[in-house]
Amino acid sequence: MTGSTFGTIFKITTWGESHGAGIGVVVDGCPAGLELSETHIQAFLDRRKPGSSRYTTQRKESDSVEILSGIFEGRTTGTPISMLVRNTSQRSSDYSDIASYYRPGHADYTFDQKYGFRDYRGGGRSSGRETIGRVAAGAIASRLLSELGITVTAYTQAIGGIEIPDPERPLKNMDIEESRSNPTGMPDRETSLKAEAYLKQCMENLDSAGGIVACRVSALPAGIGEPVFEKLDANLAKAIMSIGAVKAFEIGDGVRAASANGSSNNDSFRMDDNKVTKTTNHAGGILGGISDGSEIVLRAHFKPTPSIFREQDTVDKNGGNITIQIKGRHDPIIVPRAVVVVESMTAITVLDMLLQNMTARVDRIKTFYGK
Amino acid sequence: MTGSTFGTIFKITTWGESHGAGIGVVVDGCPAGLELSETHIQAFLDRRKPGSSRYTTQRKESDSVEILSGIFEGRTTGTPISMLVRNTSQRSSDYSDIASYYRPGHADYTFDQKYGFRDYRGGGRSSGRETIGRVAAGAIASRLLSELGITVTAYTQAIGGIEIPDPERPLKNMDIEESRSNPTGMPDRETSLKAEAYLKQCMENLDSAGGIVACRVSALPAGIGEPVFEKLDANLAKAIMSIGAVKAFEIGDGVRAASANGSSNNDSFRMDDNKVTKTTNHAGGILGGISDGSEIVLRAHFKPTPSIFREQDTVDKNGGNITIQIKGRHDPIIVPRAVVVVESMTAITVLDMLLQNMTARVDRIKTFYGK
Amino acid sequence: MTGSTFGTIFKITTWGESHGAGIGVVVDGCPAGLELSETHIQAFLDRRKPGSSRYTTQRKESDSVEILSGIFEGRTTGTPISMLVRNTSQRSSDYSDIASYYRPGHADYTFDQKYGFRDYRGGGRSSGRETIGRVAAGAIASRLLSELGITVTAYTQAIGGIEIPDPERPLKNMDIEESRSNPTGMPDRETSLKAEAYLKQCMENLDSAGGIVACRVSALPAGIGEPVFEKLDANLAKAIMSIGAVKAFEIGDGVRAASANGSSNNDSFRMDDNKVTKTTNHAGGILGGISDGSEIVLRAHFKPTPSIFREQDTVDKNGGNITIQIKGRHDPIIVPRAVVVVESMTAITVLDMLLQNMTARVDRIKTFYGK
Amino acid sequence: MTGSTFGTIFKITTWGESHGAGIGVVVDGCPAGLELSETHIQAFLDRRKPGSSRYTTQRKESDSVEILSGIFEGRTTGTPISMLVRNTSQRSSDYSDIASYYRPGHADYTFDQKYGFRDYRGGGRSSGRETIGRVAAGAIASRLLSELGITVTAYTQAIGGIEIPDPERPLKNMDIEESRSNPTGMPDRETSLKAEAYLKQCMENLDSAGGIVACRVSALPAGIGEPVFEKLDANLAKAIMSIGAVKAFEIGDGVRAASANGSSNNDSFRMDDNKVTKTTNHAGGILGGISDGSEIVLRAHFKPTPSIFREQDTVDKNGGNITIQIKGRHDPIIVPRAVVVVESMTAITVLDMLLQNMTARVDRIKTFYGK
Repeated sequence: MTGSTFGTIFKITTWGESHGAGIGVVVDGCPAGLELSETHIQAFLDRRKPGSSRYTTQRKESDSVEILSGIFEGRTTGTPISMLVRNTSQRSSDYSDIASYYRPGHADYTFDQKYGFRDYRGGGRSSGRETIGRVAAGAIASRLLSELGITVTAYTQAIGGIEIPDPERPLKNMDIEESRSNPTGMPDRETSLKAEAYLKQCMENLDSAGGIVACRVSALPAGIGEPVFEKLDANLAKAIMSIGAVKAFEIGDGVRAASANGSSNNDSFRMDDNKVTKTTNHAGGILGGISDGSEIVLRAHFKPTPSIFREQDTVDKNGGNITIQIKGRHDPIIVPRAVVVVESMTAITVLDMLLQNMTARVDRIKTFYGK
Repeated sequence: MTGSTFGTIFKITTWGESHGAGIGVVVDGCPAGLELSETHIQAFLDRRKPGSSRYTTQRKESDSVEILSGIFEGRTTGTPISMLVRNTSQRSSDYSDIASYYRPGHADYTFDQKYGFRDYRGGGRSSGRETIGRVAAGAIASRLLSELGITVTAYTQAIGGIEIPDPERPLKNMDIEESRSNPTGMPDRETSLKAEAYLKQCMENLDSAGGIVACRVSALPAGIGEPVFEKLDANLAKAIMSIGAVKAFEIGDGVRAASANGSSNNDSFRMDDNKVTKTTNHAGGILGGISDGSEIVLRAHFKPTPSIFREQDTVDKNGGNITIQIKGRHDPIIVPRAVVVVESMTAITVLDMLLQNMTARVDRIKTFYGK
Repeated sequence: MTGSTFGTIFKITTWGESHGAGIGVVVDGCPAGLELSETHIQAFLDRRKPGSSRYTTQRKESDSVEILSGIFEGRTTGTPISMLVRNTSQRSSDYSDIASYYRPGHADYTFDQKYGFRDYRGGGRSSGRETIGRVAAGAIASRLLSELGITVTAYTQAIGGIEIPDPERPLKNMDIEESRSNPTGMPDRETSLKAEAYLKQCMENLDSAGGIVACRVSALPAGIGEPVFEKLDANLAKAIMSIGAVKAFEIGDGVRAASANGSSNNDSFRMDDNKVTKTTNHAGGILGGISDGSEIVLRAHFKPTPSIFREQDTVDKNGGNITIQIKGRHDPIIVPRAVVVVESMTAITVLDMLLQNMTARVDRIKTFYGK
Repeated sequence: MTGSTFGTIFKITTWGESHGAGIGVVVDGCPAGLELSETHIQAFLDRRKPGSSRYTTQRKESDSVEILSGIFEGRTTGTPISMLVRNTSQRSSDYSDIASYYRPGHADYTFDQKYGFRDYRGGGRSSGRETIGRVAAGAIASRLLSELGITVTAYTQAIGGIEIPDPERPLKNMDIEESRSNPTGMPDRETSLKAEAYLKQCMENLDSAGGIVACRVSALPAGIGEPVFEKLDANLAKAIMSIGAVKAFEIGDGVRAASANGSSNNDSFRMDDNKVTKTTNHAGGILGGISDGSEIVLRAHFKPTPSIFREQDTVDKNGGNITIQIKGRHDPIIVPRAVVVVESMTAITVLDMLLQNMTARVDRIKTFYGK
């Protein structure tokens, strides 16, 4: 069946394999009148580009985006925006032996089971390159949200067990600029250096590492989210868990809430400057699946890159037990490059639900239509 | 917008408020020919019934289900199955003062912000009673899965910080019968007693507790899940996070994966009895969003019940800072009653994706249509 | 698969068989704040009630609606509105012999082929009673549209070959009150009497008749409809063709357009009272799938009731050629009762697309959210 | 909102404007294992190519398709198939004056009303070039259907009022080869010549013509279609009415059914060679929204091309009454080029519903999964 479309009103459809002709996305339902050019998209794509540090693959991929439709005289027209990134660095021969066996931790076996065969070159559709479409669409969503004063910001919270200090401090106290310039994506230079040392060790051990990406949405109005199945947190969970290698999703206090008490977990409401606010934000900005006006706080837990250079046991397509050693170019960690992917999926989801909320009330519909 | 429908092929639409005329669900897309009666549904509903222990509310709710359509001569006809549970224990007066203020940790404020007003009686649509529709539908999904040899089993893994020993042991080593008969839902009597003592303490403290529900799916074939957005884990995440009070979702090793290494987190493939198996299951049965034939393992983290009997700070509808003390009947923990809800949402999701998978291959479609 | 849900934002899910416990609908996505009671729904349902004339079945069906959810203090809450009509007149024995053969023109054979068996009592899910859910939902849609100044009006244009004079005259020149009070639903008394005479003749011939229902939407703003697949006319076509017995759908000049020339078929634009108007309306109010501000004009062509009392050739379930004679209570025409069904499906579709249009422009979204 | 996606399981998303970089489609949900290459797609696209006769525009458009994803080693992989046709013949200057006024019969006015502005070059998204995506997707659907022994065939039934003789004769008695080689698309040479003479007259009159396209589906198994809203005919109606310029849709006898009697309109069932058949096919192969095993017969009624070279009254963007005379290259009729579009949309719809039907019965699901 179909699985490459996400969203209800702001709807994206991604396509493309690692070693096919290209990767792309069609963004349908983008409102008309947004100033948009390839420059805006490229800025987002560049944040996920490989080759920018020693901890990401050394492939030279330009990942230049071309907008094929939906823009006229510099603005979105309301019609679908099709974006294309050609694949340029295709060394298929690197992957030829992968055809015959199933790499542990990868989707080789499951794709074969589902479809009968697979495009084995570079992981095919399950390659990390698939996220290019998400990020190109996320750039648009993010840009439209910013028109509404809403910002979505992701960063690395932890690599391996190494976590930034005081991870629950508000976003304004995070050094986001730092996170955008260092190779880990962490908003804390000291922790980032520790994490780099850890990654160096992992590489020497022919091993890989996982980590945590946090994402926060600021200035989202209260009232966004559609009970009971289209709750804001439910849709964010799906958006984030659909990213390859994510194994857990948390909103607000997340797993810690399960061992807390109501008295410590409840956030008190208080008036502040004539506005309803919460004195704490254990809820992560969502109550009953609907935004409460506080910062949305979520976390994505990524598993270590499955491609490691150690010997591994596995089976081949003929049902034989074998031992393999993966070659080629593989990041020892995907977290730094995944930051912008988490940010993109969050932006897409939040925008979609913001648009969905516009039909919640008869009085507002009447005002909209001038009645 | 709409938010009360879940699923693509096996599609459920729930409706109803805590203190309205009733609660119900329409199950559309249930295949024809399944033997089904109210007895099967009632057995599931009875597992979430209040009043069965000291840790759940003492309301007397019969929660008797009536099947209104979709069954003929004891079998499903392929047409929508409508199920109705009348609300019987409606003491609306208990909730009259809730109308004027916002309870911390509840959806009172966010519903008002979204819709302009709310049905404040007993939480209205955000009441736990909303899950009746999910469970009635889950009973059907579970029954159909069992026809295919697939079982879905949920249980309580932890309450507060008290966790069952060796929580990662296979389901066959869990005492599920124990979990169905004690008041905590834990598959371990000793831990259950500790948890009960903890809950007793919470109640004496006028406080509440959270916990973890685990759920496992056995004998699911490999190949289920639709990349890239309709991955099995992505849909399970949405299904589970849409349940009220769930703040985190994990698949397999979940959050632990983020601090693991590739060498320890990868599951080796090995031939066992001529079948491809994994020697470990850190992945929780899902690779690349597609089932791998191993047990599916997920965990839902529930926050403590927000209704506690202590004094709490909040604001009223007129923007005044006030202190409230909640009265009425409220569970100190919702986890034991939520076990069957997690099991239901998992069954609904797995069944839906199992049906979606039927169109994955041309050769199988040809066989299906006799070509 | 599922087929009982219609609509994207204003979404209805119908259920129920002719001789089951009841018939109903869940309306999800109805905006909050609409004054609504069972009286409003009942008024619509009464328009499709049988037994009101000699040309409709003599069954005594009260068809009383109960609203089970979604209303609080007389207004919609934004949560799903569940409505139930109990079946009361169930003489299943009338239908016992239908079980063994396939009635020509009915869905008996196709249901058996699809599902392996069928609820044969009174047509089961393919009974005309299925439309009760559509009409109950249509009553809500119509009421909300009227809040926006938009009216949807259906009437009978033709029965057999007998057509009202000047069928293309504007709605304001139609005698809609007449159409609501006579047994044919025609807005012209003289033609109605002719049609009644024709129906009397049909009944004497043990035969049945078909006809045309027209529907018009007034005061719909320009801009409604979503190119290219969710065009307003495409969705109206689906809505109307999903009604049992409809065999053709026209918008504006419809089939006549195919033999016209561009010079006669094009509608000139002209300024009228400072507004853009069309001097003619061959287009039926839709250009490029989007409303143009003129009256929407559509027509539904209904086949004759397939249940006739003459002898008919058919086959039985065992593959034998047989001759049957249908008994029981059957309308010689369904058109008069279908008028409110066409009106309901049109209202549901137009409202849904009106809500969908709210996210078309960035500037309007900014205004909506106060930016 | 979104409107560029069609289908549920076999899901297509089209994009592109007449004078943008290109036109394309993403086909998601295509089953794995279908042999497919650009040759198959190109053959379909060539059938809608302009410039092939004097009755179609003289633009030189190569319309060469590139498959960007979803194919590996000559077979579909189950992942999305992205196809791109670059626009090459872009003389935007031809359209510069269109920017300032609204052409009668076109979507200029409604696009402006909806989106606030429009890409006016060549009709933008409402151009006939939009159908390239539909046809590319239709080529795939048609190819997959042929693997199941099902054929979809469209042809021109009428142009202006000139209709082929005996239009209801079975497909096997139609000269489809003739229809593919003459400039009208009619399966009858004599009528085609008459129609050509008529078109010549239209052109001399600076006028345009409409017509009827018929489409038939052979060998579709009984049981396809999902009551009550996803009926096969309802979805076909939406598919066909979503094609620009279609003003009416008929299934089987269509509008004629409205003036027929039950005794003449009902199709008798009879055993033929041990199979259930119908002695006539007034129903057009669909009963109760489900295929009955007979040939599916539908008709699409196209209005005349709105671009005519006569003087026409209209308004400009500033609200002035003006007279215009359209220039450029415009077909005097779109019907011949629309034949393959109707065939494509029919194939897409039929295939989608064929896939949807696979989950209708428990016993077949059990067989599918080896239980």
